[in-house]
Amino acid sequence: MNAALATLCIKRVGIDTWRESVAFLHRDCPVVRAAGFQALAKVTVRANGQTIAAVLNVVDDACIVDPLELGLSEEAFDRLGVAGGHPAHIEHAEPPPSIATLHRKIAGERLSRDDLMAVIADIAAARYSKIELAAFVVATNQYELDRDEVLHLTEAMIAVGQRIDWRHDVGAGPIVDKHCIGGIPGNRSSMLVVPIVTAHGMLCPKTSSRAITSPAGTADTMEVLAQVELPLQRLQQIVRETRGCLAWGGSADLSPADDILISVERPLAIDSPGQMVASILSKKIAAGSTHLVLDIPVGPTAKVRSMPDAQRLKRLFEYVAQRLGLHLDAVITDGRQPIGRGIGPVLEAVDVMQVLGNHPDAPHDLRQKALHLAGRMIEFDPDVRGGDGWRIARDILDSGRALAQMNLIIDAQGRRNAVLEPAPLIFELRAAADGMVVGIDNLRLARIARLAGAPQVKDAGVWLAHALGDRVQAGDLLYRLHARYDADLEFARRMALADGGYRIGRAEDLPHGFTGNGAGT
Amino acid sequence: MNAALATLCIKRVGIDTWRESVAFLHRDCPVVRAAGFQALAKVTVRANGQTIAAVLNVVDDACIVDPLELGLSEEAFDRLGVAGGHPAHIEHAEPPPSIATLHRKIAGERLSRDDLMAVIADIAAARYSKIELAAFVVATNQYELDRDEVLHLTEAMIAVGQRIDWRHDVGAGPIVDKHCIGGIPGNRSSMLVVPIVTAHGMLCPKTSSRAITSPAGTADTMEVLAQVELPLQRLQQIVRETRGCLAWGGSADLSPADDILISVERPLAIDSPGQMVASILSKKIAAGSTHLVLDIPVGPTAKVRSMPDAQRLKRLFEYVAQRLGLHLDAVITDGRQPIGRGIGPVLEAVDVMQVLGNHPDAPHDLRQKALHLAGRMIEFDPDVRGGDGWRIARDILDSGRALAQMNLIIDAQGRRNAVLEPAPLIFELRAAADGMVVGIDNLRLARIARLAGAPQVKDAGVWLAHALGDRVQAGDLLYRLHARYDADLEFARRMALADGGYRIGRAEDLPHGFTGNGAGT
Repeated sequence: MNAALATLCIKRVGIDTWRESVAFLHRDCPVVRAAGFQALAKVTVRANGQTIAAVLNVVDDACIVDPLELGLSEEAFDRLGVAGGHPAHIEHAEPPPSIATLHRKIAGERLSRDDLMAVIADIAAARYSKIELAAFVVATNQYELDRDEVLHLTEAMIAVGQRIDWRHDVGAGPIVDKHCIGGIPGNRSSMLVVPIVTAHGMLCPKTSSRAITSPAGTADTMEVLAQVELPLQRLQQIVRETRGCLAWGGSADLSPADDILISVERPLAIDSPGQMVASILSKKIAAGSTHLVLDIPVGPTAKVRSMPDAQRLKRLFEYVAQRLGLHLDAVITDGRQPIGRGIGPVLEAVDVMQVLGNHPDAPHDLRQKALHLAGRMIEFDPDVRGGDGWRIARDILDSGRALAQMNLIIDAQGRRNAVLEPAPLIFELRAAADGMVVGIDNLRLARIARLAGAPQVKDAGVWLAHALGDRVQAGDLLYRLHARYDADLEFARRMALADGGYRIGRAEDLPHGFTGNGAGT
Repeated sequence: MNAALATLCIKRVGIDTWRESVAFLHRDCPVVRAAGFQALAKVTVRANGQTIAAVLNVVDDACIVDPLELGLSEEAFDRLGVAGGHPAHIEHAEPPPSIATLHRKIAGERLSRDDLMAVIADIAAARYSKIELAAFVVATNQYELDRDEVLHLTEAMIAVGQRIDWRHDVGAGPIVDKHCIGGIPGNRSSMLVVPIVTAHGMLCPKTSSRAITSPAGTADTMEVLAQVELPLQRLQQIVRETRGCLAWGGSADLSPADDILISVERPLAIDSPGQMVASILSKKIAAGSTHLVLDIPVGPTAKVRSMPDAQRLKRLFEYVAQRLGLHLDAVITDGRQPIGRGIGPVLEAVDVMQVLGNHPDAPHDLRQKALHLAGRMIEFDPDVRGGDGWRIARDILDSGRALAQMNLIIDAQGRRNAVLEPAPLIFELRAAADGMVVGIDNLRLARIARLAGAPQVKDAGVWLAHALGDRVQAGDLLYRLHARYDADLEFARRMALADGGYRIGRAEDLPHGFTGNGAGT
């Protein structure tokens, strides 16, 4: 009757449980009956010398697992790395060692470096359930982490991941990077900054994310023009050849604990300063950057809503970066409205290529922002005088050298011969009254562009006809929705009609008080 | 190409997702591809005029669902209440209306009555995902709810559930009840209190829970002797006949939001004062009680660790009860050690029947505690003088009237002819040194009893040979483990040998400072 130690047979169950390892046992499995397992119990699965933690789902359908099978979700199966049909054992999991530490944080205690190392190690090893992850995210959001806790959280996230070292590829000299904390639709300055600074001769191996809650990430937009899913070795080769890249960072396993935490931060829409700093800096340091320009947009519908908040966040970034030996130049920019005209991968790629080509219609705000940030990065070059960066960047862009460099990078990554044509189904939102555009809601426009299909549908999104401060007359076009499917257009149209995200008013209603040093001002 | 509005075919997927509604769509389902659904997205399912919220799992195995099927977990299928094969539509869910309120609580704001009504209504309608529930539980745990928030939370929980009204069955007079906040193994005083107070002529329709994290709930132990899963109508009939019952409260749907919150509080092991008060009082009021004796055990390994904490909790219970018109007598008792000798359903039933039978070996502490609590309940009787309750309770017990009354209730619910014999596999833990028992860890013993198989294995558990203050010699029996399966005995034995939960020391090491008015002192 050694039921709880009975041997079960591994079966891969084709369910994508998104970062949570799930074990499926039949209700009549002798282990379930004898050892009193309940649904959602945490279990340890052992097979062929491998061990993983998983959450138990009880199954009543023998087609999914029969009573002598141990089903594993795709995530769990991949983590265990043992073939289907192999014998396995299951037992009650001891709680992860750091759960007591989690409870101390929930109770409001400050955590030490060792505490955070233990928590992050357990998270990276997938020993936390979704609800334990949510508890950690909320607890570290509520009792705001102090700056040493943020430092230790960042260190812990770096410690559990891979780390790229460019030094033996390229010798000394800065490894530069640029990052935006996000939240501004259409903000594709990375795709301009990388060709400019690499044309200047700097090394800039830029890895980007895909969209999580936005209508496009840099990786999504770059993918319109070139391959972005590149194995690490290929990526290093491209950087050696062209000094830069614009690749997706997802396969590099740079900060695996962060990737897991994001799986609950995203649906909870929680992005606290401490988590943001640890997430961004751990990935940059793991990617081998030595110098980083950080873009912090401020505005009423940006992630950071006020200048004091932006200053506080900037100081937190600076403190952690300095302790970890990363040179950081944090720039507070205008985040009151989207950047450029397009929102969505193809529409943003059009903006980028117009700026690179010095096209007369190229969006001025995107050009200015890119020159501003590229200039700051160029000033990381010890041979450049402070204040000369912007001019150098402008010369590179105006001379066509940035475009030539972009074409080099695109060819190195693998050019895609995309037609940069927005999706054919259209809805146009028009001004209901005469007046001035006094408010544009970043969040609303991002949501409308997503409903239209972006980023999955590459050529879907929004094309903006007007920016803050523009005078419009009733009936003038405010923006155009582009979609590929009727249903998507209908969802997006309904949302745009309910609240289009544009506010028309009088000049004195324009949001003021923004005094950032960004290009938009 | 109206893909997102395409009709899918409902299929019940036999997976028990424990209070979370899950929808399973194949990765090649046209809706998934066109509308950009991601794993864990929240969706709205519509079929035959019914609507439910669900979380999406993406499936790669057509045996589970094919690309034109919409799979529903058992929970989701039951909630929707539409037959398999029926056509259904799926779309992106709007976030539940109260999510903005949840974020305000996460940010530390105080919530109003309307706020809490909205949150609890969404929770009861299963519109919150597991991680949103976890966020609510952690947020209300951290920024401790003020007493009006607890009042409103309790009211909201009552408002979304069923409510039993005994008045037309029994006329006026108190409807008495007794509840313990939990955490003390073996504490089965309800099974003594109900026969005593109903023998006195009071109405006491006691509904109890099954064990959640403990080795036995009152419902588990009563189930050794009688049926406890009774439909509401049958339960009311029994109460009319015998004045009392000892039934499982789970099928009555008295506080559905609480049942859902418990599904995350349990694995997180979070039980904050506000949540505890709202959970207990909402269920008591929904069950129709007018007078409640509440047992708050205090001890180093009890839920409440110090007398000031107990007093604070008592005042919070009193405030909310008073506002809701419930007469409450909260009693702080000795929670330094388990009550009685048995831990586990059969072992506890033995204790109970010994006390009812006035057996010479009956555990004195259990008898004293039951008399103490029953006495307080009897004093709710307007014809009983303050201070007389204990004597009346003792007379009822000593005269055998309590035993007779228990037999009436058992017969009315449906007697089970159980042999009250503990499980045959045994491990004995013995004292390692001479000395006095100066500490018994409630949590450790509960955990060991659970590993031995309790409560699923009814006759498994722990039998305690010694209590606090007993002198023992090296080699004396401390407790005996009972198990039915080798593996269970082995798990429990290993844990008992690692740390048995008993501390042997000198008389001066006994925990002191406890000055409660419980029967144990």
